[in-house]
This record gives sequence, C-alpha cells and structure tokens, in this order.
Amino acid sequence: MKAIGVTRDGDEPELLDIERPEPAHGEALVKTLRVGVDGTDHEVIAGAHGGYPEGEDYMILGHEAVGVVEDPNGTGLEEGQVVVPTVRRKPDGETNEYFRRGEPDMAPDGEYFERGIVGAHGYMAEYFTSPADFLVPIAADLAEYGLFVEPVSITEKANEHAFATREPFEWRPEAACVLGNGSLGLLTLWMLGQTFDRTYCVGRRDRPDPTVDIIEELGATYVDSRQTSVDQIPEAHESIDYMYEATGFAPHVVETVHALAPNGVGALLGIPEPWDFEVDGGSLHNELVLHNKCLVGTVNSHVKHFEYAIDTLEDMPEWLLDDLITTVADPENVAPAFVDDDEQIKAVVEFDTL
Amino acid sequence: MKAIGVTRDGDEPELLDIERPEPAHGEALVKTLRVGVDGTDHEVIAGAHGGYPEGEDYMILGHEAVGVVEDPNGTGLEEGQVVVPTVRRKPDGETNEYFRRGEPDMAPDGEYFERGIVGAHGYMAEYFTSPADFLVPIAADLAEYGLFVEPVSITEKANEHAFATREPFEWRPEAACVLGNGSLGLLTLWMLGQTFDRTYCVGRRDRPDPTVDIIEELGATYVDSRQTSVDQIPEAHESIDYMYEATGFAPHVVETVHALAPNGVGALLGIPEPWDFEVDGGSLHNELVLHNKCLVGTVNSHVKHFEYAIDTLEDMPEWLLDDLITTVADPENVAPAFVDDDEQIKAVVEFDTL
Repeated sequence: MKAIGVTRDGDEPELLDIERPEPAHGEALVKTLRVGVDGTDHEVIAGAHGGYPEGEDYMILGHEAVGVVEDPNGTGLEEGQVVVPTVRRKPDGETNEYFRRGEPDMAPDGEYFERGIVGAHGYMAEYFTSPADFLVPIAADLAEYGLFVEPVSITEKANEHAFATREPFEWRPEAACVLGNGSLGLLTLWMLGQTFDRTYCVGRRDRPDPTVDIIEELGATYVDSRQTSVDQIPEAHESIDYMYEATGFAPHVVETVHALAPNGVGALLGIPEPWDFEVDGGSLHNELVLHNKCLVGTVNSHVKHFEYAIDTLEDMPEWLLDDLITTVADPENVAPAFVDDDEQIKAVVEFDTL
Repeated sequence: MKAIGVTRDGDEPELLDIERPEPAHGEALVKTLRVGVDGTDHEVIAGAHGGYPEGEDYMILGHEAVGVVEDPNGTGLEEGQVVVPTVRRKPDGETNEYFRRGEPDMAPDGEYFERGIVGAHGYMAEYFTSPADFLVPIAADLAEYGLFVEPVSITEKANEHAFATREPFEWRPEAACVLGNGSLGLLTLWMLGQTFDRTYCVGRRDRPDPTVDIIEELGATYVDSRQTSVDQIPEAHESIDYMYEATGFAPHVVETVHALAPNGVGALLGIPEPWDFEVDGGSLHNELVLHNKCLVGTVNSHVKHFEYAIDTLEDMPEWLLDDLITTVADPENVAPAFVDDDEQIKAVVEFDTL
C-alpha cells in the first residue's frame, strides 16, 4: 500500500510502498480517509523527535487522521464506521498505570509511543491498524473534517485542566487570548469565542493574511506581537483572564503571567527548546502569588477529550473548517501538503473519500 | 487601652496608649487573648507594606489573633464566645464583588485593606472591633492555640487551590515538600504528613536547631538547601508531587518546576521583591508542558478556610503547637516577641487568658 513517511537517511516526506498491516487481536483494520499535517510533523521530518519504530528504517508520518473501519476483526466495531484514532500507545510489550486508567496523556516521557511522532508508525497510509479502544467513532457526515478531532481534543484537555484550576472560587472571566494563529490557534479561538465575551489572537503577520481574516471573521482582535508584545497586551487592550499559549516561544511562559488579569490562568502547550534568558524572577513569582494566578502545562489528550472534540466539531461553522483547509494533496503528490508558508493553514493528505 | 503599633517616625514596635474602639453597627467588640507574630509583621515594621490607616500616624500590628466576644452589639454572636478574626476588610466606604461573594482573598491589589498590614489597624491591642461576619467561632479549649488558625487557613486555601488543579485526572501523589521551616512551614508539614506518604522540609540551618528537631519529630526529611538546591531534590531524594513554597526566594519559582514529578503541582506563597536573573526559560516552559505540571499562586484566605483550619487545629498534636510557641510576651514588654533569630519559631503577645 501507499504510505508517506520519513527514512533515516531522508530529510523530506517520501512515498513508500509497504505491506498493508494485519490487525492483531483486539485491533481493527482502518481504511484511511484523510490525514492532517501540523507543526509536529514538520518537527518529525526535521528530526527533532526521532524515535523510529524499533527495527525500522522509516516511520510513517501523521497523527491527525480519520478513517473508516474496513475489518472490525472481532472488536465490536462495525464495518463502515467512521473513526478517529488517538495518538499515544503503550510501548511495545509494556503497559503502565496511565494506560490502565485510560489517561495515557498523563504518562511521563518514555512511558508511551506516539503514532507518527515517536516510536510508532503514524496514519499517513492507505490503511492502519489500532486497538479498538483507541478508535473513537464519529458521524459519517463529519468524516471530511474528522482530521480536526485530534487538534480540537488537545484544546479540550487544555481547557479542562485550565478551568479546573479556577474551580475553588467564583471565576468570572471575560477575555481570552490565544497565542498562535496556526490551525490549532484558530480552532481554539472559535471555541473560546463561545464562552468568553472578548477574544484576542496573537500572531506575527502582515495584512492581508488569511489567518488574520479568519481571526476577524470570528469577531476576535488580532494582536501583532511585533508591535505589541504579550506582556503589553493589558496596556494596549486589557488584562486577560485566560491565556492559551500554542507557539512554543519560550519567553511567553513569563509574559503570559504578566498579561493575565488577577485570578487568571495560562495554559501552556508549546514546546520550546532550551533557551537561557534573563527574567525578573522576583516579579514573576510575586505576581503569581499576589494575584492568585496559575500556569498549567498540558500535552496530548485521551479518548474522553476526543469525544468532547467531536461534539465541539459538530457545532463549528462549516465556513471555518473549509477556510482552514488550504491544501488537499494526493498521496502520489504530497509536496504541496508540506509547504509551510503564510498561505498554508491546514494541509491534508487525502487517501480516500466515503 | 494598651496597643502595640508602629508609628510613621518609628522603626520598631511601641507600646501605645489609645482609645478603646467602639463597635459600629454590625460589629462586635472583642477582648484580645493572644496575637501571633510572623514574617509579615517584621516586613510591616521595616516599612515594606506601608499603608497606614487613613489619617493616622500609627498602625496597630498583628493579624494572627484570637479573642473573646466582650460585647456582641446585637450581631448574634454570644458574649464569651471565643473567636478568630479574618484579615481582609473592605476599603473604607467601598465594597466590591469579591467581598460580596465572601471571597476577599481573591480581590486584586487595591481592593482591600489587611488588618495590621495595609490600610487598617491590626489586632495587637487589648480590644478590637470587627464585623461579626469576619469573626470565626472557635471552641474555648482551643483558645490558647487560636492564633494558629490564620496561618493554617493560608495553607488550607493553598492546598484547596493546588489540589483542584489535579482534579481532571487520577492523581496519585506520594511525596510532598515544604520550602521554608518557619512556623507556617512546620504547620504545613504536619498537615501534608496526614495525606502524603513521604514529606520533606527545606531550610538553611545547622543542627542542632529547634525547627530541624520538629521536622524529624514529624517523620519528615530535612533538606539543607545550602547542600542540596531545590532543583537537585529529585536526584538527592526523589521527584516531588506537591511543592509548597513559603520562603519568597525568587529562584524557587523555576526550581520548583524542575523538582516536581510528572503531573505535579507547586503552590507559591512567598512574596519576593523584583530580582533579575538568568533562567533556561525554554526548559522551564517545556517541562511544564511535557509533564503536565502546574504552578499556582495563592494569597490570603477567607472564612471557609478559617473553618477548615479550626478543624485541622483540633487534630494537631499539642506537643507540636507547644513546641512552635517559643515566646509568650507581655504587652508591657514585647521586645522578646520581635526577636527574629534561629531559636524563635512563633512568638505570641498575650493580652489576657480565659
């Protein structure tokens, strides 16, 4: 079958011809419909994650997928059911308390594989197999947009963790701000727009720009961080009750605290490299304490968050999902899906349609 | 009546002779039993907080008090009821949403007075008045230790906020660490010892030392931060599920994140001055995200936390409370209560006994 992967010697995605996988006991065989490309895929291609599947000299890319059950293989799934696979898997031959509890997103480094990222093949192939427990059913009429379930699930988890921190008191947030105008940032901006009175989205783009257009179509305010740094947002606009950091620009960890309103919370999702710089650590500490602020780091998501994400996706306007998908590439010619320029928001590799 | 206060021109606590306060409508008159001294009082004396009551050239010290109702003044309290006053009060002539909700601890800077700290007289006097809503009843047999209710309430709030952040998943913490071996740290160490399997307390003292003796009596491990910095705790001992920071040493905001186990939470309570230093902001951000860690700042407490604290105090061993009180001073000779050396843990000014 056709698969898109990276090889140990290569530095770009290649079309591979590999064996169709056979589902093991407890696994179903899924025919792939669409697979999204995101920043993590570009990092995998650049070799930032490494971790090829053991004994393999290639890794199939892709972790944002939607497919249709081809062979339930006795798992209880129905043939023809549209499904979205989760990303984390037990390391070969092992399990651990996090997987047993259904919370693999809480497993520490080294206690999981991530399909298409570290230690396990991804979904960018004509077929894939997965334990049925990690295949989340989705309505057939959402199949086209099913590749958004994984990224939306990341925000479902982040919001759950962030809002839980504010449960002990009566929090009355009004303003939310998303740092990052990629597809995850824009999906999140819509989600936060459903409950916050005012939303902001921070990027580094000149107009005209397709993401700025979407930001404004969503009724949010675009903040150009080249003019207004994150810690200047309170002065330029207002203090922010909920900051959602999805860029991985390391200084944001500090700037987020200063941009927060009293009793605000910042969710951190970006993953920067080590970077030494000077901070006013006293004021950072002080500001967290005196204004009851919170910073919560969050990574990955589990089945429950995928289910929440499917509900959320059902409510999202179709124009938004259509506008986000800027490229639909064929496996025979995937190069356009890996172009990473200002015109690209979400690229998709399409293997099949319903 | 006798009161202990600081004056605008003075730089140490003085015995003042002032008018006994008259309770206004909704207030009761309380006869003071004991008032504790803590680090904040030393900061007030040093002028770090400022904020004398408007129009006054002195401020009565003290915010850790216990007293007995002398005149209920129609408030519904009973004469003779032992009570502990909370600390935050509405600024004169104003109110705000935080006070209306009973959550003055969540009010931002400028929207509250703190008795004995900023804008309002404290409790270190023969009598004080307070709105009855801010007087929390306590059993007479706890009166001697009632001055510990306020500091314990600070930890009740911190724990509530910290543990709420871990609610979205099945958190199974085992190790807790308190940064700071003052009376608040030692009270907290006992509290955490009730639910955590292993506890640590970080200080900077040579043995023999009375706080190290208490740490070990509590079954906790003493960590001398001159030998083992906070971020070295995982290597020297183990990673920590819950870090409680009560020193205000600014680098702890970063070191705490590195000392935390995956999915751990750090509560920050200390209040450092501004201090620029270099940090690896990338790794700080990264570590928060990849291991789902959380930092939560927390200040002050409200009536509910005082009520929790009274329950906690009932369970605390008497030897601990007795060992913590190293000085009981008379208002006529308070100097011993303001000595701040390694032999002092908690000093108390005693105005009366039951």
